[in-house]
Amino acid sequence: MNDFFDVVLQQRACREFSDEPVPDEDIERILTAGTHAPSAENTQPWVFIVVRDDALRSSLSDLTRRLWAAGGRDYAAAHNTRRLFNEVDNLVERGLGGAPVFVVVSADTSAGAHATALGSSIFPAVQNLLLAANAIGYGSALTTLTTYGSDELRSLLDLPEHLTPMAIVPLGRPARPLGPPRRRPVAESTYRDRYGTPWR
Amino acid sequence: MNDFFDVVLQQRACREFSDEPVPDEDIERILTAGTHAPSAENTQPWVFIVVRDDALRSSLSDLTRRLWAAGGRDYAAAHNTRRLFNEVDNLVERGLGGAPVFVVVSADTSAGAHATALGSSIFPAVQNLLLAANAIGYGSALTTLTTYGSDELRSLLDLPEHLTPMAIVPLGRPARPLGPPRRRPVAESTYRDRYGTPWR
Repeated sequence: MNDFFDVVLQQRACREFSDEPVPDEDIERILTAGTHAPSAENTQPWVFIVVRDDALRSSLSDLTRRLWAAGGRDYAAAHNTRRLFNEVDNLVERGLGGAPVFVVVSADTSAGAHATALGSSIFPAVQNLLLAANAIGYGSALTTLTTYGSDELRSLLDLPEHLTPMAIVPLGRPARPLGPPRRRPVAESTYRDRYGTPWR
Repeated sequence: MNDFFDVVLQQRACREFSDEPVPDEDIERILTAGTHAPSAENTQPWVFIVVRDDALRSSLSDLTRRLWAAGGRDYAAAHNTRRLFNEVDNLVERGLGGAPVFVVVSADTSAGAHATALGSSIFPAVQNLLLAANAIGYGSALTTLTTYGSDELRSLLDLPEHLTPMAIVPLGRPARPLGPPRRRPVAESTYRDRYGTPWR
């Protein structure tokens, strides 16, 4: 899929992956898109750890399952649609959907950006990863649950103090074709000049 | 520019705009890309305010100039390259580069996502805006400085309490052709399985 708007408008979370391996060259293409995102003062504070190791993926999946059971699951069951809850529950229980690669994205807090600017300097890069994955036929998802267990995450991945884990992106071929994303129309979230003045 | 990787790899901040107007249909196309981003629990908490009004753009520019003078400028002068500092200083002094449209992006904190998930639910959408703008020939930039003056920003745009301003994206035709983005190679920020193990 090459057309820019096709890639963007059809991008959606993949929550179940085949175990087909992802070659380094495809990962590098996806990460190259990530590194072309903007960041505060062009500090480029992203650090990517590409996890393929079975034991590590298993430990990260187990940490995620425990965090889910410790609160996320009940919250989601109460607040989300049944369909979304089932998909996310399945993602967690299967070890981030059984993806063959987890990309752990951290922010380098020593890179110079203000702490308040970490989100605006990391999530654009994460979005580029998701889009680039879609462009070359891979599924992915933006997950943050595992980062709430940051001490254990740090220990598993040898993360030094100056790295703050922000997201984990599972990556692989989708187990089955993905449907379109479910999104509200632009006019529902857009105003003209001031809040309250309808866009159209 | 249609090819996905061309759009992503050539996207960069535009900091000086022509005053050529941006038609509603182009803005809507850009915002549609924004609304196709992921968000925590698919809450889609983005709220876009498309500001074209001259007096409002002037007030927002003035607020930004004051915040820059109050600290951002000195910090940037001391920490950034001269080239980047000059570009950003020019952007601020010219009123967000003289862009004919400012898109103010807020997070709806009543939409259900945890407060800790606001960044991961807003900046992917902002990145989609920047990329889509580039795809159809517009310049843009991800700016957050103005949001540090959130009380005045709220008052100017009638933002209710449940909206948290997160970014302002100036949008318009670039005043001159933009060079390529300056980014470090992937291997400098990527590790294999654990921090410290080189990617290649």
